[in-house]
Amino acid sequence: MTDDRIAALEKRLQTLEDEREIVQLLAGYGALADSGSAEELAAIWEPDGVYDNDEISMVGNAELVAMVRSSRHQGWIGNGAAHFNGPVKVTVDGDTAVAVNHSLMVIHEDGRFVVRRATANHWELSRGAEGWRVTVRTGRLLDGRPEARDLLAAGARGQRLERA
Amino acid sequence: MTDDRIAALEKRLQTLEDEREIVQLLAGYGALADSGSAEELAAIWEPDGVYDNDEISMVGNAELVAMVRSSRHQGWIGNGAAHFNGPVKVTVDGDTAVAVNHSLMVIHEDGRFVVRRATANHWELSRGAEGWRVTVRTGRLLDGRPEARDLLAAGARGQRLERA
Amino acid sequence: MTDDRIAALEKRLQTLEDEREIVQLLAGYGALADSGSAEELAAIWEPDGVYDNDEISMVGNAELVAMVRSSRHQGWIGNGAAHFNGPVKVTVDGDTAVAVNHSLMVIHEDGRFVVRRATANHWELSRGAEGWRVTVRTGRLLDGRPEARDLLAAGARGQRLERA
Repeated sequence: MTDDRIAALEKRLQTLEDEREIVQLLAGYGALADSGSAEELAAIWEPDGVYDNDEISMVGNAELVAMVRSSRHQGWIGNGAAHFNGPVKVTVDGDTAVAVNHSLMVIHEDGRFVVRRATANHWELSRGAEGWRVTVRTGRLLDGRPEARDLLAAGARGQRLERA
Repeated sequence: MTDDRIAALEKRLQTLEDEREIVQLLAGYGALADSGSAEELAAIWEPDGVYDNDEISMVGNAELVAMVRSSRHQGWIGNGAAHFNGPVKVTVDGDTAVAVNHSLMVIHEDGRFVVRRATANHWELSRGAEGWRVTVRTGRLLDGRPEARDLLAAGARGQRLERA
Repeated sequence: MTDDRIAALEKRLQTLEDEREIVQLLAGYGALADSGSAEELAAIWEPDGVYDNDEISMVGNAELVAMVRSSRHQGWIGNGAAHFNGPVKVTVDGDTAVAVNHSLMVIHEDGRFVVRRATANHWELSRGAEGWRVTVRTGRLLDGRPEARDLLAAGARGQRLERA
């Protein structure tokens, strides 16, 4: 019976640790994006991970690194930018997980700060040898397009997105 | 002595699990609001839960569902809106809890994003048969009105609000 | 062997509890700032803690209290302000820790809400007799200045800042 109680504790603790690891992994995105830490940002994803955004789509770490090093991204962080991610709602199912949140991209422009984008984010993750990593991040602008709403609904329910 | 150590672990773990459940419950609000998931949003509250906002006040799940389905809310999410909730500070006391955070309502308007509201939120929760649910959410616009400041101070201290 | 399993659980749980305590400590900042809760805000820091911001620098709790009570801060919260802090990425190393996040200062001005500042925050903490407290918070405007980017990179890596 002692063994059972310990085993139950181990399982409950693992559940908290999984969720905490995902929350912390994603909490680093903004700091890495806005400091131009290209390799470290790419390492949030699996080596062949996908970032499917309505402005740009990337497959694999090399494309994520290239995005951070692009003149476009460097221009933003050179003028001042905040990739501000909100808290994530996470649903873990064994070795895969889904998370959802909003993000704001706030940029410094003409001496003031403006919200350039408000984005709906759906994150799919998996647990590998090095821990939890993102397999697919899908981001859609919250400008009324239905995909953004669908993505939020699926994420809140812990559902993966169907791929075209 | 082994039993005592296990019992202490069980208690500490329960404390973390309670807080985690509340954090995750509230983390889903924005995704549900902006996707128009009316019933799921209402289910964050207890069946007779209250959402007392300075613009609108609702009692019970049916009124929360109606709010999401209203032409006003549908208009916002149809044009694009982000109900962006910040991280919550949570104080659990047995089977009740208090949480506090800020939220921003960012809307898409004339092709750009503007902060329509910055709101102070005070959440009261209780633990029922189906887990933690919100009993009362009180939101006040951060436009200088004293109630918003009072609500933030009470929330940070883990105090419930007194009702008129 | 039972003892070993219990000891392992105790250690893993302590790790979660440390991080959770830091997350919750920092989650209270905005509510305390915007409600003008001067002493409680100062108590997030150690008695001789530092808040080094590009607009103002404070050393010790009395200076933090004075900042909250200043006519400048009171003017902001009197007109309406949201010190909106994003989720923190935390790295705990024994009895010290580093955290990083973004914050937005949103103010109510001429009947609307504007983002006055987007700030990169680097937090250093230590564990004392009363739990985790901030030793140094460093904030830099995200207007393109290199210090803000350096601070985000260091924070994401869990590195302390070097002092001039």
